[in-house]
Amino acid sequence: MKPIRNTLALLAIVTAGLTTAYAQDPLSSWNDGPTKQAIVAFVAKVSKEGSPDFVPPAERIATFDNDGTLWCEQPMYFQLFFALDRVKTLAPQHPEWKTKEPFASLLKGDVKGALAGGEHAILEIIVATHAGMTTAEFEKIVADWIATAKHPKFKRPYTECIYQPMVELLAYLRANGFKTFIVSGGGIEFMRPWTEKVYGIPPEQVVGSSIKTKYEMRDGKPVLMRLPEMNFIDDKAGKPVGINEHIGRRPIAAFGNSDGDQQMLEWTQAGSGARLMMLVHHDDAAREFAYGAESKIGTFSDALMVEAKKDGWTVISMKDDWKTIFAFEGK
Amino acid sequence: MKPIRNTLALLAIVTAGLTTAYAQDPLSSWNDGPTKQAIVAFVAKVSKEGSPDFVPPAERIATFDNDGTLWCEQPMYFQLFFALDRVKTLAPQHPEWKTKEPFASLLKGDVKGALAGGEHAILEIIVATHAGMTTAEFEKIVADWIATAKHPKFKRPYTECIYQPMVELLAYLRANGFKTFIVSGGGIEFMRPWTEKVYGIPPEQVVGSSIKTKYEMRDGKPVLMRLPEMNFIDDKAGKPVGINEHIGRRPIAAFGNSDGDQQMLEWTQAGSGARLMMLVHHDDAAREFAYGAESKIGTFSDALMVEAKKDGWTVISMKDDWKTIFAFEGK
Repeated sequence: MKPIRNTLALLAIVTAGLTTAYAQDPLSSWNDGPTKQAIVAFVAKVSKEGSPDFVPPAERIATFDNDGTLWCEQPMYFQLFFALDRVKTLAPQHPEWKTKEPFASLLKGDVKGALAGGEHAILEIIVATHAGMTTAEFEKIVADWIATAKHPKFKRPYTECIYQPMVELLAYLRANGFKTFIVSGGGIEFMRPWTEKVYGIPPEQVVGSSIKTKYEMRDGKPVLMRLPEMNFIDDKAGKPVGINEHIGRRPIAAFGNSDGDQQMLEWTQAGSGARLMMLVHHDDAAREFAYGAESKIGTFSDALMVEAKKDGWTVISMKDDWKTIFAFEGK
Repeated sequence: MKPIRNTLALLAIVTAGLTTAYAQDPLSSWNDGPTKQAIVAFVAKVSKEGSPDFVPPAERIATFDNDGTLWCEQPMYFQLFFALDRVKTLAPQHPEWKTKEPFASLLKGDVKGALAGGEHAILEIIVATHAGMTTAEFEKIVADWIATAKHPKFKRPYTECIYQPMVELLAYLRANGFKTFIVSGGGIEFMRPWTEKVYGIPPEQVVGSSIKTKYEMRDGKPVLMRLPEMNFIDDKAGKPVGINEHIGRRPIAAFGNSDGDQQMLEWTQAGSGARLMMLVHHDDAAREFAYGAESKIGTFSDALMVEAKKDGWTVISMKDDWKTIFAFEGK
């Protein structure tokens, strides 16, 4: 019986610790109000056994967009900053870029000019910076960049430009038996090297856009080579496809911030039983950024606002609903 | 303090239950011998904190092939039985099939004749039976079939034609902090409706072959339509690709049974630290089936046997290593 008694003593300590933690508000960066109440009420009813809205833990799937929902996306998607830094790093090996678009404009610091080439220009930049190496090499490139690069406005590492209320929400959902997933238009292998440390979301719960890879032997060792070809675009109507492919189960809660998340929220809502759909609205120019229908990055169109109201989706006001936006605030 | 005391009382019961369960051998369907010892020794060293081979729980990823590794694959892949039954069910709506290959042969019960058309014939059968409906409709078709269809030799539901030693191994790994995944050439949406109940593997931990799907509105409700086009073949060199895409982390243990698993085992072994690679060998004609290099289904080639010996992969003899093959034996 001794090992059991020791185990129990240990558990008593752990349980006491949890009780103390719960005495504090797990959503302390959220202002009290209808948005916070909607979250707490939803979690309570789906996790209470015997409740008509009870959902077994295995089915408590929550999906989160990343850019603009968990971390910032202004003045430009962070992955685009990564690509630009890579273009600069690789430029000495590519003298032809000096006169070849979209690289020539990029190297002069003219991002708008570079992106004027549209999808074709973006694909060229992705291929030049995200393909042609092994998955392990790319992982290291991303990990090195994310450890050193800084956001132009906040002068902090990008992984600190994350929304503290959403970090709390992720933890709160997991503490209540949810499995949390990222479902982002961003590159799946651009996110995986850091999501576990930053959000507590392991690589296998990250869904994103991807390029094709190929299994090869290199010097007798197997590698996965990253090919210059898109595999999947996890945005808009691609999000339900990606969710079905990776998770195989419909989320009961989904969080986004832009037109790219519309179909994910529709797909989530179309399931039976209790559902929670929320959209982060960037309306706080003082603490973060204010943008919406007119923005090319993270467009929150008027049509999306209409659909949100019609379908009962909650629009989170960063200004009103979030007490704190960043953990570094006031430091 | 009362809730804590109640929690502790409950935990004491649970803990006592676990202790009793562990007094029994969690791998009781395995004969004592080097194979079983290899499994137990591997699990012990990677899960013991302070051990030089310790692996944090989040990285304890184990991948399992399905056909021939977790359940039978003779006299024919079970998904092919499913497709044949679907062809018969759908035949009245397709009078043209009476004279059109590969359907004409199939409807006469001549599977070999039907498959003589090779890949093109197989694709035609898949498209006719696996596409053209929503994902929800397909899930129901599979669930209905798996609940009623029976294996021609064992006269049992296919979900009972699973290997009891492997079911124990899955549970044993999970009890030691592993996350278990299926990585199969079979259809991802053919497996997901039943893997959780049968193997304890939830949909999000199933990796398989897939056809393309498309998000659409049907009568104002969003659906995912299954399109007549392959999306991904999760076999041979596709397995490491599928593992990287879905899991994003290299397995530390992998289990297969045929040439289709070779690259998955190579990829697993190529990581650093302790690794476990095993291949089930079907050498028990009395209790199951005996086949190997000569078989078209589940080919275990001589080259694979050579590689297994060279690389130190364990070949599991069903005849010698497994005390029990099926839970229904002797009933």
